[in-house]
Amino acid sequence: MNLLRITLLALCLLPVPGAVAAAEFAFAIHGGAGTLSRTDLDADKEAAVRAALDAALDAGESVLKADGSALDAVTAALVILEDSPWFNAGHGAVFNAEGVNELDASIMDGATRRAGAIAAVHRVRNPIRLARAVMEHSPHVMLIGDGAEQFARGQGIDLVDPSYFRTDARWKQLEAARAKERAGADLAPMPGTYFGTVGAVAVDRQGRLAAATSTGGMTNKRWGRVGDSPIIGAGTYADDRCAVSATGWGEFFIRAAVAHDLCARMRYAGQPIEQASREVLDAVAQLGGDGGLIAIDRDGNIALPFNTAGMYRGWIRRDGRRGVAIFADDHRD
Amino acid sequence: MNLLRITLLALCLLPVPGAVAAAEFAFAIHGGAGTLSRTDLDADKEAAVRAALDAALDAGESVLKADGSALDAVTAALVILEDSPWFNAGHGAVFNAEGVNELDASIMDGATRRAGAIAAVHRVRNPIRLARAVMEHSPHVMLIGDGAEQFARGQGIDLVDPSYFRTDARWKQLEAARAKERAGADLAPMPGTYFGTVGAVAVDRQGRLAAATSTGGMTNKRWGRVGDSPIIGAGTYADDRCAVSATGWGEFFIRAAVAHDLCARMRYAGQPIEQASREVLDAVAQLGGDGGLIAIDRDGNIALPFNTAGMYRGWIRRDGRRGVAIFADDHRD
Repeated sequence: MNLLRITLLALCLLPVPGAVAAAEFAFAIHGGAGTLSRTDLDADKEAAVRAALDAALDAGESVLKADGSALDAVTAALVILEDSPWFNAGHGAVFNAEGVNELDASIMDGATRRAGAIAAVHRVRNPIRLARAVMEHSPHVMLIGDGAEQFARGQGIDLVDPSYFRTDARWKQLEAARAKERAGADLAPMPGTYFGTVGAVAVDRQGRLAAATSTGGMTNKRWGRVGDSPIIGAGTYADDRCAVSATGWGEFFIRAAVAHDLCARMRYAGQPIEQASREVLDAVAQLGGDGGLIAIDRDGNIALPFNTAGMYRGWIRRDGRRGVAIFADDHRD
Repeated sequence: MNLLRITLLALCLLPVPGAVAAAEFAFAIHGGAGTLSRTDLDADKEAAVRAALDAALDAGESVLKADGSALDAVTAALVILEDSPWFNAGHGAVFNAEGVNELDASIMDGATRRAGAIAAVHRVRNPIRLARAVMEHSPHVMLIGDGAEQFARGQGIDLVDPSYFRTDARWKQLEAARAKERAGADLAPMPGTYFGTVGAVAVDRQGRLAAATSTGGMTNKRWGRVGDSPIIGAGTYADDRCAVSATGWGEFFIRAAVAHDLCARMRYAGQPIEQASREVLDAVAQLGGDGGLIAIDRDGNIALPFNTAGMYRGWIRRDGRRGVAIFADDHRD
């Protein structure tokens, strides 16, 4: 009996394989996927983009290293990316057909499956902060338009003049899109025009997962078009096993319910994260869409697949390997 | 060899069990789930609700009997339910905090996984028609607010004065909610106030599936709140095996990605529709929410579960059995 007791005690004290991984953290970010080629990106811009991705990784890492939550890590990284002019989110977002920056964002906490989302706001400096406030300080998941900004005011969320979001590069993109439209081109989204959505996924030392996504949507968008970024289950999802942020041709990502489908493949079909990530992007491609995503599981495994020429991305693996990449053939770790 | 060939040929000519079912159609509708009790519903209102559900079943059935599409069947049924004053959709929708009817809807075609959704429109007589126009006549999936109405105008969609949607019963509900709020009650949705969302699912004789949902949302809603009804993957989903329309406390249905999760349980875990329906509602309950849903599979099996006291519902099974029910202990077929 005593021997049995001692054996059982010894077994209880042995580290469980999953538990070792859960004691560490892992983190990934994206800054959009698209038809970017090396000729589109001069050396200065490439250096600036890589620096911004690195700064976002730093922001998330410092939260996670200090035993902070996955939720705080993804929020911190997205604020950096929203404030950077190089991504299609916050400052530097694309313009809609009325020449206005119209912003969408969402966030989800995997441990509690609470979620917050906002769409079509025009004055919120950091849309991800508002999405998080919706999650934490309202009984709702999704608020849109002027109503969402009214809620923001009551929450002390930083509001700015709409001119804050403007960059000359995005204005030129709008002018180019308008010229194409006048020339009779199709109104359908053009590959590349939706490049630049930002997102982050994290697992913290307590094994909690979170995901967040923020975007300006499509250049020259009209009719109050909303893509996948603020849609819980499409652009963003997190549960106790899996967190996902997607980027790409949003209509197809909604139809394939990309973020939730990836987690469902892991949960119900037992697919590893790499396989689930690849297969859900294949499903998007079968519908006719393209893009990419970042996904993380509770053991800290990371997948960063895309079926476009490039995806701005960065990662910190649970063993500490860290990297930033843009093209498909970039250095991976 | 000849015997083998003849045997194989005979096997090929044998009716496959699924194929027989696919030659028939099946159809289900809901008019919302909630904390309805028999004392809330006088005999006149109950008769009117049952008649409206019957009329919606008739509308879908006449499409499906004439070899029409599942998509046309769910559209036809929802137009009837939106036009009826007894449901929280179209005419008879609830009022938001500003005393305005603010409407959401979505539709999905399982065969192509095309989808359309609209949120926060105030002048569209039949929101489901606009959701369908978004799917069929725009490159987008989701349009919201004034932009969605601008698109509607270009599509020849019927626009009405906002007063069209008003019913005295809904106005009294808003006044009651405002009085409770003035008395310091919680702003969180109250069970019953979200009762009345409408939806339909169908499989047609060609085995194509479709789902549609339409709602006025929550009484006294504010800040541009959007629930699960216009969210593809939450309130509505359809693929080649499964179609779902949900109703209930929308925030929880978004967080559980109810409609897509049900289809994912069938696809990846091989769950039959009854089990998948029950387990996804259990997941909603675990998060703290309640409501119901209607689901149909490609063989015409129907599930109509709810974890509230009642759900307005109707069905036509593939063997022709037809029924309408309100309470949990109602006659089932």
